Amino acid sequence: MIRGVLLDLSGVIYIGNELVDGAAEAVRRLHQADLPVRFITNTTRSTRAVILRKLARMGLDLDPEALFTAPLAARAYVQRHGLHPLCVVHPALAEDLPDTAGEAYDAVLVGDAGHEFTYENMNRAFRLLLEGAPLLAMGNNRYFKEADGYSLDVGPFVAALEYAADTKAVVLGKPAAAFFQAAVGELGCAPGEAVMVGDDVASDVKGAIDAGLKALLVRTGKYRPDDEQQLRGTGADVVDDLVAAVDWVVRARDQDR
Amino acid sequence: MIRGVLLDLSGVIYIGNELVDGAAEAVRRLHQADLPVRFITNTTRSTRAVILRKLARMGLDLDPEALFTAPLAARAYVQRHGLHPLCVVHPALAEDLPDTAGEAYDAVLVGDAGHEFTYENMNRAFRLLLEGAPLLAMGNNRYFKEADGYSLDVGPFVAALEYAADTKAVVLGKPAAAFFQAAVGELGCAPGEAVMVGDDVASDVKGAIDAGLKALLVRTGKYRPDDEQQLRGTGADVVDDLVAAVDWVVRARDQDR
Repeated sequence: MIRGVLLDLSGVIYIGNELVDGAAEAVRRLHQADLPVRFITNTTRSTRAVILRKLARMGLDLDPEALFTAPLAARAYVQRHGLHPLCVVHPALAEDLPDTAGEAYDAVLVGDAGHEFTYENMNRAFRLLLEGAPLLAMGNNRYFKEADGYSLDVGPFVAALEYAADTKAVVLGKPAAAFFQAAVGELGCAPGEAVMVGDDVASDVKGAIDAGLKALLVRTGKYRPDDEQQLRGTGADVVDDLVAAVDWVVRARDQDR
Repeated sequence: MIRGVLLDLSGVIYIGNELVDGAAEAVRRLHQADLPVRFITNTTRSTRAVILRKLARMGLDLDPEALFTAPLAARAYVQRHGLHPLCVVHPALAEDLPDTAGEAYDAVLVGDAGHEFTYENMNRAFRLLLEGAPLLAMGNNRYFKEADGYSLDVGPFVAALEYAADTKAVVLGKPAAAFFQAAVGELGCAPGEAVMVGDDVASDVKGAIDAGLKALLVRTGKYRPDDEQQLRGTGADVVDDLVAAVDWVVRARDQDR
């Protein structure tokens, strides 16, 4: 029985600065079908407020509580553990993170920092890790699609620091099971009653399945044809886009009723 | 029977801009003992000519042929395979590498590029890899010691690109067995008759042992006390410094005579 839906944002709801065709109606259809929805994203180049404004400009108005982001999960983790991380993150993200500048750092928190991934910043992070600071990662995504092609996401730089300091990051976004399960908790259902819809075969789809959810891969965003081979035997389905995913979800829910 | 010696440079022969205490005499002692020597390095921030001048200034004059570098091994590989790599390397290295600027790139060659490891350069490399270009790495060292602390070497950035593009680099410096064996070939002996002396437990010592050489770790340069645990059961020995290493080598050779 399907009782809730998690939707990835970039590549599923929108690409670049436009909604995917039919996305706003598809989201409305989920609401009309009484299926609770959370939008979950590892995007670490924008605060929640900025993402909400961007979606609104494109024609999708969301309740702030419906947006579940990796940076907010990271902030909660850092506060829970009383840490003062050096943040190697995108400058636009500052508002959603604890301000630890000037403190004695005892952790490293890495997001998709883009051009902030300088040699100098990587070295500062590395030296803290060598001293035993934990490495916190807002995701481990490999790359994402920009207007001019694919670009490196946070994952490769986390891999670099893990290799350099012979350590393992704590992942605070997708595909960490704890992240999916926290989002499912807000849907008010069990993991096996939730469907995750994403365009990233590893982070969205396999991550969700490993966390006990059902999952759908859409053929939009960063989807590449050979992604489908990776899903053989996982139980995940592949559909063309968000509209087809919502069709799939509503039909599966109605069949089970 | 020991019939030849490979010496790492940075951390073994010199640290910063000074020879390790007794290094010049230790090298002379090897010559006097009729033990052929090659100096092998993954340093990819200087051409062979610059390294030779630097050593001479510090008081060690070497025959150019005695210096075996990862960039020269990389150049040979690229020429042998007819490749035109995008080079993400330190600007100072240009003279020792093929000039492929402006050509259609069909490979990526990565060295210890330091501040050239910008997000933009990493992205350019990544996009070529996604199209199927091979990744060539002048080593996979994790870090090295600078005057102000440890700094990231080439290995972490190779790990980042491997993770991003789901590929595996061809390593053209230490710890690649082919690199050690090519250097041993110049000594005119078999791998089992050669001793490698290094300060990097993974790249120098384990690499040499995996290539069939004997190996000594020195407690200078990037050595850290817990390195010794990693060598248990490998047959590698640990000595204080180059002087002690040469003592060890000459004594072992004389015992076997």
